[in-house]
Amino acid sequence: MTEQKATNVTWHAHRITREDRQKLNGHRGAVLWFTGLSGCGKSTIANAVDQLLHERGIHTYVLDGDNIRMGLNKNLGFSPADRTENIRRIGEVAKLFSDAAHVVSTAFISPYKADRDMCRALLPAGEFIEILVQASLETCESRDPKGLYKKARAGEIKEFTGISAPYEAPENPEIVLDSDNKGIEALAREVIAYLEAKGILPA
Amino acid sequence: MTEQKATNVTWHAHRITREDRQKLNGHRGAVLWFTGLSGCGKSTIANAVDQLLHERGIHTYVLDGDNIRMGLNKNLGFSPADRTENIRRIGEVAKLFSDAAHVVSTAFISPYKADRDMCRALLPAGEFIEILVQASLETCESRDPKGLYKKARAGEIKEFTGISAPYEAPENPEIVLDSDNKGIEALAREVIAYLEAKGILPA
Repeated sequence: MTEQKATNVTWHAHRITREDRQKLNGHRGAVLWFTGLSGCGKSTIANAVDQLLHERGIHTYVLDGDNIRMGLNKNLGFSPADRTENIRRIGEVAKLFSDAAHVVSTAFISPYKADRDMCRALLPAGEFIEILVQASLETCESRDPKGLYKKARAGEIKEFTGISAPYEAPENPEIVLDSDNKGIEALAREVIAYLEAKGILPA
Repeated sequence: MTEQKATNVTWHAHRITREDRQKLNGHRGAVLWFTGLSGCGKSTIANAVDQLLHERGIHTYVLDGDNIRMGLNKNLGFSPADRTENIRRIGEVAKLFSDAAHVVSTAFISPYKADRDMCRALLPAGEFIEILVQASLETCESRDPKGLYKKARAGEIKEFTGISAPYEAPENPEIVLDSDNKGIEALAREVIAYLEAKGILPA
């Protein structure tokens, strides 16, 4: 054991830190937390932002229904407790990616203020950027890309946000995007401008 | 709505893919799954590998007790079901990081073959690299950095792997590290050599 211990001491172990990873990536991490009604454009805008960031060499990732509900959270349903746990796990994973110096976007309805605030509290100040994708129920229902509003109106989906379950809009989101009146690219560029202004991205 | 829809069409949306992220990072993603008894050196070796990779400009992350048990998995205990769920979630998060073109190391005892195989099955072929950190119970118990073996021998910890709970060693791990006889740096370099040989790292 003596030799083993000596070898341990000789090896100058340095645990790689978030600052080391930020230096490698050339930018800080952040969580872009998109919230809003089904059909408001969260996922489309998040992916547009992701594309603009990636083109600038920013290290990014998108967490959405495709990679979370089918994976990490596949053992969760839609009960109140499961909805809260769904958001909690997403917040914890987003925290890991931000710690890894990634600008990670999350695109989930996340209708409850308490759940979003729980995720904000996980992160260092300034690293959780809440983005309200504002669109009227009429706009969202007229888009209805997955036919979910139709099913909700027919009573086939219970507790559907905006129809039969509440949406608690953020009171002080970092960014509000007007998805009723502006296009995807314009909205995505508003997010980029915010990140530049806050020094999260190199200007 | 007409204008909104037209804008949607004009914006050439491209969802950033794993290949895009690999190109940005200059390397593929992979999961280095370290497994072995408490005290065998998993976390120390994983962090040494992480340091060597980072110094070469590889994008890395380490998942271990510090950032998982206190965060994502803080609502899990040590029942058989919770142990399996613990490993499942770690596997799912590791998959996300590998998808993000990171070489992510996980350092958990992960004593059950079925749990590790479940994680392997989540990933594309060749992306899950199982690393057995081989050390005799005597070696691990003589190190006992956290005093856990002492507590297990005294009956203060129930179902302690290697003492009162089984460790199912991998049958065909990609890498076996001889932690009884070799030092941290030598073992870490064996992992690097494997990653170069497999083309996961630029040689």
